[in-house]
Amino acid sequence: MQHPGAPSPDILALLEREFGADLLTSHDAIDARSRDDSGLCLPPAAVLLARSEAQVARLITLANAHNFAVIPRGAGTGLAGGCLAETGGVVLDMTAMNRILCIDSDSVTATVEPGVLTGDLRRAAKAKGLFYPPDPASLDTSTIGGNAATNAGGPACVKYGTTRDYVLGLSAVLPSGELIQTGTATRKGVVGYDLTRLLVGSEGTLGVITKLTLKLLPHPAHQQCLAAVFSGLDAAMRAIISVMTRGHLPSAMEFLDAKCLKLVGDLLPEHVKGKLVGGSEALVLIECDGTEEETARAAQDIEAICRELGALALIPAPSDAAREEVWKVRRSVSTRIHETCAVYIPEDIAVPIGRIAEMVAALPEVEERFGVVIYAFGHAGDGNIHLNLTSPDEAARPRVEQAAEECVRLALALGGTMSGEHGVGLAKRHLLPLEIAPVSLKVQKGIKNLLDPNNVLNPGKLFPEGPASGKE
Amino acid sequence: MQHPGAPSPDILALLEREFGADLLTSHDAIDARSRDDSGLCLPPAAVLLARSEAQVARLITLANAHNFAVIPRGAGTGLAGGCLAETGGVVLDMTAMNRILCIDSDSVTATVEPGVLTGDLRRAAKAKGLFYPPDPASLDTSTIGGNAATNAGGPACVKYGTTRDYVLGLSAVLPSGELIQTGTATRKGVVGYDLTRLLVGSEGTLGVITKLTLKLLPHPAHQQCLAAVFSGLDAAMRAIISVMTRGHLPSAMEFLDAKCLKLVGDLLPEHVKGKLVGGSEALVLIECDGTEEETARAAQDIEAICRELGALALIPAPSDAAREEVWKVRRSVSTRIHETCAVYIPEDIAVPIGRIAEMVAALPEVEERFGVVIYAFGHAGDGNIHLNLTSPDEAARPRVEQAAEECVRLALALGGTMSGEHGVGLAKRHLLPLEIAPVSLKVQKGIKNLLDPNNVLNPGKLFPEGPASGKE
Repeated sequence: MQHPGAPSPDILALLEREFGADLLTSHDAIDARSRDDSGLCLPPAAVLLARSEAQVARLITLANAHNFAVIPRGAGTGLAGGCLAETGGVVLDMTAMNRILCIDSDSVTATVEPGVLTGDLRRAAKAKGLFYPPDPASLDTSTIGGNAATNAGGPACVKYGTTRDYVLGLSAVLPSGELIQTGTATRKGVVGYDLTRLLVGSEGTLGVITKLTLKLLPHPAHQQCLAAVFSGLDAAMRAIISVMTRGHLPSAMEFLDAKCLKLVGDLLPEHVKGKLVGGSEALVLIECDGTEEETARAAQDIEAICRELGALALIPAPSDAAREEVWKVRRSVSTRIHETCAVYIPEDIAVPIGRIAEMVAALPEVEERFGVVIYAFGHAGDGNIHLNLTSPDEAARPRVEQAAEECVRLALALGGTMSGEHGVGLAKRHLLPLEIAPVSLKVQKGIKNLLDPNNVLNPGKLFPEGPASGKE
Repeated sequence: MQHPGAPSPDILALLEREFGADLLTSHDAIDARSRDDSGLCLPPAAVLLARSEAQVARLITLANAHNFAVIPRGAGTGLAGGCLAETGGVVLDMTAMNRILCIDSDSVTATVEPGVLTGDLRRAAKAKGLFYPPDPASLDTSTIGGNAATNAGGPACVKYGTTRDYVLGLSAVLPSGELIQTGTATRKGVVGYDLTRLLVGSEGTLGVITKLTLKLLPHPAHQQCLAAVFSGLDAAMRAIISVMTRGHLPSAMEFLDAKCLKLVGDLLPEHVKGKLVGGSEALVLIECDGTEEETARAAQDIEAICRELGALALIPAPSDAAREEVWKVRRSVSTRIHETCAVYIPEDIAVPIGRIAEMVAALPEVEERFGVVIYAFGHAGDGNIHLNLTSPDEAARPRVEQAAEECVRLALALGGTMSGEHGVGLAKRHLLPLEIAPVSLKVQKGIKNLLDPNNVLNPGKLFPEGPASGKE
């Protein structure tokens, strides 16, 4: 088992000669690439701030020749440590390759470099009447290359799907240093194996994306939002499911469980606060997009469904200002959990939509058993639940980690997955065998070994052994 | 280079003992699996009408042990010969594994066996208010397993994407005979490499799908259609693009070029026939879905856009009966081409939407050079053009084939692909190197060899060498 790590001092000197000012070794430059949003800190030996595909290919070729690790990185907003230099090595920072090469109105596509911020792409598309739907929480700080490497999702994915549904084709540098083009510039293509989606979501272990061709959509003219409070999550989920089975496909369907609702209850309108008396209430937030008439009509229908299914209180949000207020409630949950808890582990399980209420109902037993507090909120329309496992006591961290693993086991028992959005990285790799059977793991390792026999590209990520086995 | 073919007589006897009445060797059984819709005829040595995953695994295990080819097959509606037994071998007919295991209203998913007809799945979902969008022309005769193996598309894909966007997870038998589960039962999942989409579209060369979990959507309540005639395809495409850049996402956007329109002009209303005087007119068919109000409003907006962009005539189709009339015009094109031409090669290129008019404008030169007639129609909203290359003279077939290759070259020069829907199979594999560069081909062959070192599963498909090289 080979674990390439940092380049030797000689090789580092060679890299400095090769890349000049683009090779960063200052304390600040290293420090800025030692972290992501996982809470881990793992400093690389050096950073290449890549300016071109040729530089990327050259670095990887040198890594194979001199046996050091290359760790591709976007903006470092990941929650799983996927872009951290666990074994040292050279972080390949792609944020400087950040040009929007083309927003093609006639073909309704975009061609971009990987360092483009997702929010910038969305704004550039909107200026031409077009829409790039994936909306991770980090959209204004994360890059499209990172979004593709992790197959990023977000609230809009219930209607629009995840990043992989928008990547038509890629240019990438393989772990061999060779350049590859995958997919097409067209909206359909069925020629050969789907290497595009093999690279998308592979967390930087199979290639470094250097260019992306993305599918865009017409931009919806209008959005309208509605929040509703139910007596419990079970009732709330019945409303969510009824909305979908009665012909509506909202562009977001979010939920907060009772604990989250208590945490942000002060942000709710007075008439709603008065309804929060049972202690088990849950909130759903449903947003529709389309023309103004369409969204108004959909909001009206959805309001009627919520009433029929026993909503205790409704918060219509037809205007942008009202929408902002409602989303603020949803977004404040994470911030407040962060502020109030010493230990905070964000789990990211997904279960079939019909099992969400069951999953959340199982949490009190876990809280009791491990002495933790679990806040559950997330994407009701696609079963993706952000479980925030917390303790006021730093010393309780091992128990919080055990509880997190228990939550993964519960999700898997309900037909779910350990991660709907965040990925495996190094934070969850030890849990991988709970979800991925040996045959699948063998195939996945075979593909890694086929493309990266020297294991130079992002070693140690995704596979349960830790620094991934390049050889059997 | 190893090309497994038919089992020896001894092994055939062993298969008969092993599978009993499910192993078919009668003339009729063989004959029925010797063809697809490509026009080719390649009889297998025998057929296994599989009843269970265990049988599938057993056959493939025996194929590895005794060096014969296994060719998976759904309903045989493919146009590329992908399910034909080029080297003899045993056709693995999956049509008897045709149970809809579950339409789960609460989780808005379906679990099905591969032999389910796509149309049956759509109807079963609709009965519960749910929608399975992919709609290949063959939907009432093709199987969902075949749709997944070829990543089938259809008119609705402009709004809803192709089959791969709906496959959440799979059970499959690998070419080693091992069972694998890929993906999830959830709408999101980012754990490990995307083996689901590696299998989807791999044309039965990497595994045999035995079960699928599919994403469903809320069923749209209503559909409304509009056809419009423009002076030429260029004007028609400007209208199509304007519809998309002004916030509309129709559920179908089809076009017929001038030649197609002449072929079916007698099916048009009288007031439209009177407008077909220039000889270069093109027709677009645009369909919207949603609530009745939404579709009525969208149709009104789209009609206004068509008028603004110079439509010569409009055919609104607000009722189901009127819709049926309009679609009949579109659907009659293929039938009439078939009826009138001795030689008929259906090409299936896709280009960026903005290049459709340019692609079609280049066809007269090809017609002239090769002495053929080319009818162009297809999916304007996703750039997928069905080019029907014809000649009244059977002896002209080689010229028609040359013209087809020239069309592929033209599409590639415009940033397109040789196939938007039909796939490579054996009909287009000789053209693969025109589109897929050596590095990508090497990776794809590497994956094939990793999963199928004995090259027993659907040998000869997809790769340009003909019976695919299992070894370098």
